[in-house]
Amino acid sequence: MGDATTRVRFKEPQIEMAHGAGGKASRRLVEGLLAPLLLRGGELGDAALLDFDGCALAITTDAFVVTPITFPGGCIGDLAIHGTVNDLAVSGARPEAIVVSLLLEAGLPTTVLEAQVRAMADAAARAGVRVVGGDTKVVEHGKVDQLYITTTGIGRRLPGVTLSARSVRPGDRVIVSGPIGDHGITILLARGGLDLESDLCSDTRSVFPMVETLLQAVGPDIRWMRDPTRGGVATALNELAIDSGLSVHLQEDAIPLRAAVRGACEILGLDPLHIANEGQFLVVVDASRAEEALSVLHGTSRGAEAAIIGEIRDAPAACVLVATPYGGTRIVDMLVGDPLPRIC
Amino acid sequence: MGDATTRVRFKEPQIEMAHGAGGKASRRLVEGLLAPLLLRGGELGDAALLDFDGCALAITTDAFVVTPITFPGGCIGDLAIHGTVNDLAVSGARPEAIVVSLLLEAGLPTTVLEAQVRAMADAAARAGVRVVGGDTKVVEHGKVDQLYITTTGIGRRLPGVTLSARSVRPGDRVIVSGPIGDHGITILLARGGLDLESDLCSDTRSVFPMVETLLQAVGPDIRWMRDPTRGGVATALNELAIDSGLSVHLQEDAIPLRAAVRGACEILGLDPLHIANEGQFLVVVDASRAEEALSVLHGTSRGAEAAIIGEIRDAPAACVLVATPYGGTRIVDMLVGDPLPRIC
Repeated sequence: MGDATTRVRFKEPQIEMAHGAGGKASRRLVEGLLAPLLLRGGELGDAALLDFDGCALAITTDAFVVTPITFPGGCIGDLAIHGTVNDLAVSGARPEAIVVSLLLEAGLPTTVLEAQVRAMADAAARAGVRVVGGDTKVVEHGKVDQLYITTTGIGRRLPGVTLSARSVRPGDRVIVSGPIGDHGITILLARGGLDLESDLCSDTRSVFPMVETLLQAVGPDIRWMRDPTRGGVATALNELAIDSGLSVHLQEDAIPLRAAVRGACEILGLDPLHIANEGQFLVVVDASRAEEALSVLHGTSRGAEAAIIGEIRDAPAACVLVATPYGGTRIVDMLVGDPLPRIC
Repeated sequence: MGDATTRVRFKEPQIEMAHGAGGKASRRLVEGLLAPLLLRGGELGDAALLDFDGCALAITTDAFVVTPITFPGGCIGDLAIHGTVNDLAVSGARPEAIVVSLLLEAGLPTTVLEAQVRAMADAAARAGVRVVGGDTKVVEHGKVDQLYITTTGIGRRLPGVTLSARSVRPGDRVIVSGPIGDHGITILLARGGLDLESDLCSDTRSVFPMVETLLQAVGPDIRWMRDPTRGGVATALNELAIDSGLSVHLQEDAIPLRAAVRGACEILGLDPLHIANEGQFLVVVDASRAEEALSVLHGTSRGAEAAIIGEIRDAPAACVLVATPYGGTRIVDMLVGDPLPRIC
């Protein structure tokens, strides 16, 4: 635990939106201040692994502050369930129970609250996870933007699965479960600042059914998984590259991407690799099982667009590269700044 | 789980501060809307009890929005650890691990964040609980009041202990661990609206050491425990009375109370029984073991002021009564309204 002598490397004078965006600034805050003091520098995964008398559990917590609170394909309520379920899933755990902390502003219409609570209940029922407890606090009007939800999930780790950046090896393949960027661009369009017509929807969903099917088929050869939410695929893979010391080489034309996401990103100068997803996950798998893993995902109910998008190499160290269809290669960094605040 | 047909009895048009105050309005919101939809009407304790392969755990979540964020005797950071540790303790569980969700406003000085994170780390170390993970979100300046913290704790239930309002019986004694109202009145004075001099401090602390000592000594004869936070002793005991169908008879002059708390309550027309505590707990114990339980508490490091304050009777049903030193008796209701918002 931190004590008065624990050194804090985070030197920025104040907290900015970017420190919550999941990219470089978030990592500086977590690695420079929060982890040294609170976690004693323990590994930062999507979920913490706990063992109680031989019972292997995982626990994860996430706050949801998305705006607007409803958007095509979802709302803050189902996002709050799916996000926590997915953090457990990509840690190799079956989501079992969730507790809910609600922060409400005074003056929030009951109809708004009820709709979000129903969405949470429905999402939990669909995901097969029980809500077992909660807490509600109310603050003055305006001191919360309608409502924020923190969900904490506990799951049981699936046997025979070891997921860690440290077990990733050169030659391993990278798979994504489906088209990227749908959630982030949907939120952007829902804010109405862009005059774009689209029938794009958030991809918010539980990925556990897909993860479970995959792990049952090729479990021991899956090295690492992550749901690329804030900061997108680029940030998740940069974290993998840093934590493993290896490099990730992507083929740009292999990455599934809807036309509406591509178009919005081109207009706005955003890289789809930086856009948040809420219903996709990344997998690193031994090369010899990659085609089999892909075929398994293609057989799941919403996995038809899963694709092998790249591979792990040993050089250059700690780096993510993308080969373009024109023969060039570019380095893709973690998200810098916060082009889309409050995306989840 | 809730579905479209689940009936919601909560008919108030919007959320008010009182719905977060822990009293009657909170209970209406929880019982009328949140529990039917999310919990399928399951029992509402301080912590949910979970069993994984015979491993008996407890899990609890709490959001902290106290203002001001620092006050005599504590701050939001240590409150966020102690509050969750105490919810586990009074559920008969040894606190083991905590995950932390931070909600920060953009512009928050890093010095403020660092001080609170250090306070959390120190409180966790003192309480013997590990922080194992977390999440950080940042919203625009003003959309959070400095910072809010949600902590979720997981603990291991102590063997041989069964705590439930339903096991309380007429004749059982009620014990409080020490003087009441210190936390709430400290926060009130820290807000500066009252011209009162006092060296009063918040009682924020982990009560687990006292609880553990008590349970080791008289565990099977302890029927029920609760930490009387929001809504105070009156609300906690009214919940016991409602849930058990019995009545709680208190002796007013037996309730430990500091002069500063008594004085502030008299000036403001508040009942000390409604004031929040953050380092006390209530115990219902079999009458035959009450003196022994009290003596055990007196032997703990901060338990010298523990007292037997009343007993359980079978009538009038579902009611809390206080006998005054002058021979009268008054009914004490749950907290109504929210005289001290954002107390924790």
